[in-house]
Amino acid sequence: MTSQINYELKKFLQKEEVNRSEVYVEELINAVAAGPDREAALGNPDLWLTLIGERISPEFKRFLSNALVTAQNNNYGLKEIKDPDCHNKRLIDLQNYLKKVQLTGFIIPLSDEYQSEYVAKHSQRLAWLTGFTGSAGTALVLRNKAAIFVDGRYTIQARNEVNTNLYEIIHLSEISPSSWIKKMMKEKEVLGYDPWLHTVQNIARLKKVCDTANIKFRATKFNPVDKIWKDQPQQPITPIIHLAKNLTGLTSQEKRKKISEILKRKKIEVFVMTSPDSIAWLANIRGADVPYTPFSLGYAIFYNDCSLDIFNDPRKFTDKVLSKMGSDLNIFPHQNFLPTLSKLGDKKINIGIDYNSTSQIIYETLRRAGSKLSHIDDPCQLEKATKTKVELEGMRKAHIRDGIALAKFLFWIDKYSKSGNLTELNVADKLEGFRREGDKIQGLSFPTISGSGSNGAIVHYRVSEKSSKKLQQNSLYLVDSGAQYIDGTTDVTRTLAIGTTSLEMKKNFTRVLKGHIALAKVIFPEGTSGSQLDVLARSSLWERGLDYDHGTGHGVGSYLSVHEGPQRISKAPNNVELKPGMVISNEPGYYKAGKYGIRIENLVAVRKATSSLTGLKSDLNNFLCFETLTLAPIDRSLILKSLLNREDIQWLNNYHKTVRHTLQPLVGKELKEWLQKATENI
Amino acid sequence: MTSQINYELKKFLQKEEVNRSEVYVEELINAVAAGPDREAALGNPDLWLTLIGERISPEFKRFLSNALVTAQNNNYGLKEIKDPDCHNKRLIDLQNYLKKVQLTGFIIPLSDEYQSEYVAKHSQRLAWLTGFTGSAGTALVLRNKAAIFVDGRYTIQARNEVNTNLYEIIHLSEISPSSWIKKMMKEKEVLGYDPWLHTVQNIARLKKVCDTANIKFRATKFNPVDKIWKDQPQQPITPIIHLAKNLTGLTSQEKRKKISEILKRKKIEVFVMTSPDSIAWLANIRGADVPYTPFSLGYAIFYNDCSLDIFNDPRKFTDKVLSKMGSDLNIFPHQNFLPTLSKLGDKKINIGIDYNSTSQIIYETLRRAGSKLSHIDDPCQLEKATKTKVELEGMRKAHIRDGIALAKFLFWIDKYSKSGNLTELNVADKLEGFRREGDKIQGLSFPTISGSGSNGAIVHYRVSEKSSKKLQQNSLYLVDSGAQYIDGTTDVTRTLAIGTTSLEMKKNFTRVLKGHIALAKVIFPEGTSGSQLDVLARSSLWERGLDYDHGTGHGVGSYLSVHEGPQRISKAPNNVELKPGMVISNEPGYYKAGKYGIRIENLVAVRKATSSLTGLKSDLNNFLCFETLTLAPIDRSLILKSLLNREDIQWLNNYHKTVRHTLQPLVGKELKEWLQKATENI
Repeated sequence: MTSQINYELKKFLQKEEVNRSEVYVEELINAVAAGPDREAALGNPDLWLTLIGERISPEFKRFLSNALVTAQNNNYGLKEIKDPDCHNKRLIDLQNYLKKVQLTGFIIPLSDEYQSEYVAKHSQRLAWLTGFTGSAGTALVLRNKAAIFVDGRYTIQARNEVNTNLYEIIHLSEISPSSWIKKMMKEKEVLGYDPWLHTVQNIARLKKVCDTANIKFRATKFNPVDKIWKDQPQQPITPIIHLAKNLTGLTSQEKRKKISEILKRKKIEVFVMTSPDSIAWLANIRGADVPYTPFSLGYAIFYNDCSLDIFNDPRKFTDKVLSKMGSDLNIFPHQNFLPTLSKLGDKKINIGIDYNSTSQIIYETLRRAGSKLSHIDDPCQLEKATKTKVELEGMRKAHIRDGIALAKFLFWIDKYSKSGNLTELNVADKLEGFRREGDKIQGLSFPTISGSGSNGAIVHYRVSEKSSKKLQQNSLYLVDSGAQYIDGTTDVTRTLAIGTTSLEMKKNFTRVLKGHIALAKVIFPEGTSGSQLDVLARSSLWERGLDYDHGTGHGVGSYLSVHEGPQRISKAPNNVELKPGMVISNEPGYYKAGKYGIRIENLVAVRKATSSLTGLKSDLNNFLCFETLTLAPIDRSLILKSLLNREDIQWLNNYHKTVRHTLQPLVGKELKEWLQKATENI
Repeated sequence: MTSQINYELKKFLQKEEVNRSEVYVEELINAVAAGPDREAALGNPDLWLTLIGERISPEFKRFLSNALVTAQNNNYGLKEIKDPDCHNKRLIDLQNYLKKVQLTGFIIPLSDEYQSEYVAKHSQRLAWLTGFTGSAGTALVLRNKAAIFVDGRYTIQARNEVNTNLYEIIHLSEISPSSWIKKMMKEKEVLGYDPWLHTVQNIARLKKVCDTANIKFRATKFNPVDKIWKDQPQQPITPIIHLAKNLTGLTSQEKRKKISEILKRKKIEVFVMTSPDSIAWLANIRGADVPYTPFSLGYAIFYNDCSLDIFNDPRKFTDKVLSKMGSDLNIFPHQNFLPTLSKLGDKKINIGIDYNSTSQIIYETLRRAGSKLSHIDDPCQLEKATKTKVELEGMRKAHIRDGIALAKFLFWIDKYSKSGNLTELNVADKLEGFRREGDKIQGLSFPTISGSGSNGAIVHYRVSEKSSKKLQQNSLYLVDSGAQYIDGTTDVTRTLAIGTTSLEMKKNFTRVLKGHIALAKVIFPEGTSGSQLDVLARSSLWERGLDYDHGTGHGVGSYLSVHEGPQRISKAPNNVELKPGMVISNEPGYYKAGKYGIRIENLVAVRKATSSLTGLKSDLNNFLCFETLTLAPIDRSLILKSLLNREDIQWLNNYHKTVRHTLQPLVGKELKEWLQKATENI
């Protein structure tokens, strides 16, 4: 901050009687700037101003917003790197540091302290060090050698982004980090890791490897990357909001009572909460610290007397929010967390943690304090997955808003795609624009996958200015996108014909559709898991020797993560029962590498098989079914009717009728007419 | 044996120059008589005579056969009990014996030393003691209390067979033996068990229960029931036969080489074989010691130099059979088994056993000897499950013979069922008779399930003289049966309309048929397990809120057990891949308690999805499909065509065409005409 700006800030603070120091405000602005970039940010972009004062003047607001924009110009060495040799320098710096602290090697995972799907800029150590920006990967840096391990989705991207003179790019399924460690490190050498960034399970596995190879495996006190990343951003600050019962269906107190009962049955007195989504759900709060997902990064300790201690940055909470949250929720700063755990150990009470999601340092702190520790599955996960009636109603409403945006978009693309001038990127932006016109929108729920022709065949394709190409004529265009609404989260994929498409494309599209329909209309007994149903989505492809190499369905949160557990639909065995209230995606696909991709995705809710849902004469007791939530026409021009059977056709026409009847009354005349045609019976 | 008979025997032995003592022959006759009863026995019933001499006169044969019949009149206290109070006396005898040997209680499982599905008379301790003849159950006898634990299939049967003044009948899912032990026994009391009759896993579980309740858990040296069962039959002797390569496709040596390689990869030097089916498969031998399944009861030790030591009764092997078996297979008497295990322990080699199928005493003997023991899945199980080309060819031929018998039977029942005079039992006998007319028949593969009306709804119904009822008119008749042929094993279920059937019956029959067809025609990628496919057989029932409470498919042996693993098709997660050559049943059903039962079962073989099997233009690489082996018309009068889709109808008509084209050339004119009608297109 220049002295001129600082002077102005001081004046504003005095004039408006805001009881904050200039340093406080300055730090806050920097921490807000370290939050997600605008396209990935959630919620009202100006809400952070309430963290300074609830009643400040428009002039002061304008001043603060300008200061934020300036702060946001900092890219922290994460983007638009001017010096192409920077990754070389960073690697050398790290290796020198390792020497200094007597480590032979160090592991740099992609994850943060919360094992999140998306991490804040502060935690983007892997990207900063290596240049790799994919969503899964691990680097291993030794004193004179370095490698990055990625899975099949990311080998090409890694090769494009990472300097292969510095890092060997290794396909995870060919050589595992474990076997690389064993091969490259000698006996008695020391491998370091940051105990905040690895789960208990993960460390147990790696320790075994090091033990058998007689390599020392050591937790570091500081992360070496943080030591050399001079302009590393702060941990982000974004305002926390509270969700009232009319959005959640259950108050935090009611939820805590449920969880307390579960813990009591397991004779657990304290559960240490390390998953931001569980805390968000249990406390009925949301934040915006990471991209696309309304998490506020922090930990919590739940006591089975129903009280909840949250460890997070107190600056994120306004008095107004605190008063809504209720008095039995206590906020403590991050730095109190480990000391509190240590004190818990003294009390000789039964403490539960989930080894699959808890950082090693938390486990280690509790263990050293002498706690009676045991692993339990995070009890919030299953409770959170089974949505309340109010949440389901919110989901339905969010899908109507999303449906309007999708209808506008599909109509628009139908009109303009023949021009040949649309690009993957501007189509994605257009869709985002239509969504942002709607009510209650908070932002996107993940980066839009907008793939034309061969890009559609890349399952995790993320369009960028560099990769974006024009929509290929006479091919397929695949768009997988979603939004976060205050009352629900959406995720939908449509595959569209651009120009004239081949018979093969239509056949394969219809096979994918048959799989989608078979799953959408299945009725199944209570106790059934997602793995039991997976084949329904695949057998129409298998019939012709085709398949897709991803799961069929993932859980979806209620204004929470677009990917959540514990239920899923996939080939891999999974014992989690599908229960009424769970929301899950139905997304079979087919991908012809280098040619085109097909995926048809709707979200569905698990419901009791009542006559109103099944269309049968009576309710089916002890049976469940899916209610499709997503409302968007499926491209009829790609359907080969001869491949569908009577029930398939009936489902499709019914679905389109629902789309039409729901959306038509909410849109203008031109779109109404387009919807009429797009949803006609086949 | 009377002195007169003994005198005659002596004369025969002298005259025919048979080098056997009278005592030897007499004991042999008693041991042969202790084999399965005629209806459950396998193979040539006169083959045992070769155990006395290969070339004896017809007169001596007649003499011996008569002696056997006399010996077989002994029922060992297992049947036709004259004294209704006998079970009371037996229980008191046992309780007195327990006192004598200072046990507070004793467990009597149904199983034998080999964990077989069917046990020899010698091992029917549970039936002898309690009167219970079901196929699953456990008794627990304390000094002043006794209970028998059965699952839902057997609660009614147990109540009918067992004196409830002596034994409490307990439903397994309500009270487990473990919780009963904890409740009924006091601290420091002593619970005994026979370490031959329980697996390592089973004992580990029970030991835990006893440990927590501070109850002593003690292996007995002798089985107390054997001590009080005065006329307990001997262990059975039945002749062993050798199967040549033209029946198995692989010599024993070739199989042993494969298994040796598997063990070497796991660094196992010796595998202790405790499953009679694995030994039968590996040595290419069969016996007939137990009902319905061609096992010879014994153990074996396999060394990874490919040699195999078999521990069995040497009297079962004729010189001719031994010479065919080859020189690297050695036969030792049973009593050498434990001493040999003890000696193995000295050698400090890696020994593998399968904890799921090995008796506790074997584990304990090895452990005490200081062996380096580890659990491995019995490697023969998977190899045995994937049939050779020759075995598959045998299976096909066996199913043609079985198909002829089934066609004769279905034609016969079509003709006579309207009379109203047929009973479940004489219908089952008639079917057995048609089967026994065929070539290469060895016997039945399990007791025929022949259930009319409400009896058809009892999934494990076993018809007896007592339960047999007349075929109910205007209802359904369900018959589940199978045979053992020297070249294959069959298992088939058909459900038939007797008189006029209701619309509901037809609807449900057609739904079961749709499930059967969906599974029969599925094409699936390599790596798929049976659990992944299970839903295909159920979803047409689920659509109307119906289901069946049993698995969809079990593995079937090649002239071995009609139920074999490791593959299966069921709701329960199971990671075993379906591999080319596996044979498995496809048997969805529906049961309306007290009314009727429906099941349609064919055996199928897993095959590569070649164009000749799929009917597609080209082979599907890396994909598999099922080839249906069973050849028998499905009752067309029960099918509602309107519920079938085009592909269903196509499958059915194709299947019936195959049945017709295969069987018609092999049967007489009248049956040919009936087949023509029974397999007409729908």
